[in-house]
Amino acid sequence: MTKIISVNAGSSSLKFQLFEMPEETVLTSGLVERIGFEDAVFTIKVNGEKVSKTLPILDHEKAVSLLLEALVEHKIVTSLDEIKGVGHRAVHGGEAFASSTVVTEEVVSIFEGLSELAPLHNPAGLVGYRAFRKNLPKAGHVFVFDTAFHQTMQPSTYMYALPMEYYRNYKIRKYGFHGTSHMYVSRRCAELMNRDPKELKIVTCHLGNGASITAVDGGVSVNTSMGFTPLAGIMMGTRSGDIDPAVVTYLMRKTGMDADEVENVLNKKSGMLGVSELSSDARDIEAGVNAGNEQAILTQKLYINRVINTVGGYIAQMGGVDAIVFTGGIGENDSKIRLGIANALNGAFGVKIDADKNQVRGEETLLSTPDSRVALWLIPTNEELMIARDAYRLLDFS
Amino acid sequence: MTKIISVNAGSSSLKFQLFEMPEETVLTSGLVERIGFEDAVFTIKVNGEKVSKTLPILDHEKAVSLLLEALVEHKIVTSLDEIKGVGHRAVHGGEAFASSTVVTEEVVSIFEGLSELAPLHNPAGLVGYRAFRKNLPKAGHVFVFDTAFHQTMQPSTYMYALPMEYYRNYKIRKYGFHGTSHMYVSRRCAELMNRDPKELKIVTCHLGNGASITAVDGGVSVNTSMGFTPLAGIMMGTRSGDIDPAVVTYLMRKTGMDADEVENVLNKKSGMLGVSELSSDARDIEAGVNAGNEQAILTQKLYINRVINTVGGYIAQMGGVDAIVFTGGIGENDSKIRLGIANALNGAFGVKIDADKNQVRGEETLLSTPDSRVALWLIPTNEELMIARDAYRLLDFS
Repeated sequence: MTKIISVNAGSSSLKFQLFEMPEETVLTSGLVERIGFEDAVFTIKVNGEKVSKTLPILDHEKAVSLLLEALVEHKIVTSLDEIKGVGHRAVHGGEAFASSTVVTEEVVSIFEGLSELAPLHNPAGLVGYRAFRKNLPKAGHVFVFDTAFHQTMQPSTYMYALPMEYYRNYKIRKYGFHGTSHMYVSRRCAELMNRDPKELKIVTCHLGNGASITAVDGGVSVNTSMGFTPLAGIMMGTRSGDIDPAVVTYLMRKTGMDADEVENVLNKKSGMLGVSELSSDARDIEAGVNAGNEQAILTQKLYINRVINTVGGYIAQMGGVDAIVFTGGIGENDSKIRLGIANALNGAFGVKIDADKNQVRGEETLLSTPDSRVALWLIPTNEELMIARDAYRLLDFS
Repeated sequence: MTKIISVNAGSSSLKFQLFEMPEETVLTSGLVERIGFEDAVFTIKVNGEKVSKTLPILDHEKAVSLLLEALVEHKIVTSLDEIKGVGHRAVHGGEAFASSTVVTEEVVSIFEGLSELAPLHNPAGLVGYRAFRKNLPKAGHVFVFDTAFHQTMQPSTYMYALPMEYYRNYKIRKYGFHGTSHMYVSRRCAELMNRDPKELKIVTCHLGNGASITAVDGGVSVNTSMGFTPLAGIMMGTRSGDIDPAVVTYLMRKTGMDADEVENVLNKKSGMLGVSELSSDARDIEAGVNAGNEQAILTQKLYINRVINTVGGYIAQMGGVDAIVFTGGIGENDSKIRLGIANALNGAFGVKIDADKNQVRGEETLLSTPDSRVALWLIPTNEELMIARDAYRLLDFS
C-alpha cells in the first residue's frame, strides 16, 4: 500500500488529492482557501461528503499540518508514514526541466531561479513544497511541471521573431503551459483508440477558464498556443490571447496605463469578459446567447473562430490529424461550443460530430460519427492523477 | 486616350507609374527619394532606360512639379491635360472606406481623422495628394485604401478579445493591410483558373519585406494576418509579427525601454533581422543557409512555420481551399521558401509543387503538379495597376 498525495499550491490556496497507488484509487481530496487569513476555509472529502470548516490559517505550513491531521482524524490514513510520496504541481520548469523530477536541493535552487519567468506561480509552489517537506520529512517529493511536456517543441516553433539577444539574455521564447493536462488527455486518447501514441497526430483542446491548444505528434508536443506566459494563444475567460503587439503600446500611450496596468487588463479584464461585458464564464455567455444578447453571440463566435484558426494551423504543421480532444471546464461541458468548433472544422478536415452524443458532460466519449475522417473525443482531464503517477514512478515504488 | 497616374507617397518618397487606360499600357514609372533634402534623387524611366538626377527637392509639391515637367520634357505626354486622373495609395481607410473613393473635401477630412490609426502613412498620403491636386487641378483624384479589401471581414474575425470599450472609444480592431495586392492577385488567380471568384477559396500570401496572408472566400477577404497595425501576423524582414503580448510588457520592465522604444524594436529590429543577426533580406538569409549558418537556417524554418500555421488556420476557417497564391518580393522570387511552404502543406492538404516550375522568378506560373489537390500559383502583384484601374473606373471615363 503506497499512498501518494498530489498537491497544487497557489499563493493563498492549496488543493490536494490522496491516491492509493498503483491502483490509482482516490482516497480523498480537498482544498484550503484564503491561506493567510483569519477566516481561511478548509474542505476535505470524507466518505464522499464534503466537510468544511472556517478557521485562521496564517501560512502554508499550518495548512499542510491541518490537512495531514485531518487525514488521521478521519481515519483516511492510520499513520502519516503511509504517505510515501508527494507530487507537487510546479508551474514553470523553463528549459531546465523537460520532465518531472525528484526534488533535491539542486532542483529547488534551479526552480527558484526560474521564478522570474513565473513570479506568481513558482514561489507559491515552493512554499507548498517546503510546508510538505517539513511535515512529511520521510516522504519522497517530486515536481511535475506545467511546461515540461512542451519541451519537445523545436526551436523553429518555440522561438519568437525577436532580436536573438532577448532569448540569450532573458530566455524569452514560447514555453507553453497545461502540459500535464495535454499529456494526460493525449495519452488517454491513444489508449481509448487502442493505438500507439507514436502513430497518432492529435490536437488537444484544453478549454477552461485558462485555455490552450496543443499539437501532439507521435506522443510529443510539437506546438502549443500559450507562449512565454499563459496570456498568449486563444481568447480565454478573462485573457485576450494573441493580439497585435502594437495594441499593447498603443493602449499605453492612449490611456496612460503603465506596463503592469495594461498587462492586468489583458489578463483580467479581456477575453470573454471583455467582449461580452457580461461574464468570464462560458455558461453565462451561453445564457446570453440564448437570450439573444448580441455581445454574447459575438463572444461565442469569436471564441470558436480563434480555436479553429489555431487547430487548423496545427493540423497544417503536423501534416494531418487523427484525433481532436476536448477537455477542461468548457471542453468537457459546453456542447454548443464543441458543436461550433466541430462544424467549422468539417469543411476542411471532414470532422463529423454526433449531435446526440455531444450532449454528454464530463464523461469520456467518442463524439464523432463513424464516417468522420477525424476522431473527436471528450476526455476529462486529470492532472492530479498524472502528478501522482509521476511521483509513484520516479520515487520507484514499483 | 486617357492617362492615369498611380501614386504612392511616403513621408520622404514618392513612387509613380503612368498608364494609358483602358489599355493598361505602362507609359513610364519613377521615383523621388529623400524628399526634404538637398541631395534628393529623382529617377524616371525614359524609353526603358532609367534616368536619375540628384538635386534639392525640399517638399512633395516640388517633387510633383518636377516629375510632371519631366513627363513633358521627355515627351511622354504632350500636355499635362492628358492626365485625366490620379490614383493615390491611401494606407488606412479605417471603417469609413470599404472601397476606393473619389476624393472630395469630405473624404479628405475623414481620411485626416484616421491619421491616428496610421500616423506615419496617412499624413504622407495627404501631402502627396495635395501636391498633385495643386499641380493637376483639372484631373480627378481617387484614394485607394490598403485596408478597404479587408472591410468584408466579420466582427467574429476582426474583433480582438479585449474590453469592448477599446473598440468603441479607440476603434481598436483588426484592419489588415496590403488589401490592394491581395485583391489583385486573388482576382488574377480566378482569371487564370477560368473560374468565377465567387466559387473559389483562395489563400493569398503576400510575402515581401512586409508580409501578410489573406483568406479570400468567394472573392472577398474573410481573414488576414496583419491587424490593428502592420506589425501583426507572420514574421517579416524586421517585424516580429504576433508574439505573446506579455512579452511587450516584460521587455519594458526588463530593459527599461518605453512604449515607443519597444515598438521600434518590434518593427525595425525583429523578424528575419533579429533572429538571423545577419540581414532583414531573405536573399541574405538564403546565402546564410547555403553557407551553413545556424541562425539563418533557424530563421528560414521559423518563417516557413509561421506561414503554414497561418495558412492552415485560414483553410480551416474557409472550410477548404482551391488555390494558394504567392506574391511579393519573397513570394515571387524565393523558390526555396515557396518549396518549404508547399512541402509542409502537402501532408494536410495535398499540395504538390512541381520543383522545376518552382525555379521561376517573377512570372505568372502554375507551380503545382496536375495531381495536386490545391492549385499553387506565383502571381506578381501589381498594386499600381489596381490603383489606376480604380481611378479610371471611378472617374467614369469608360
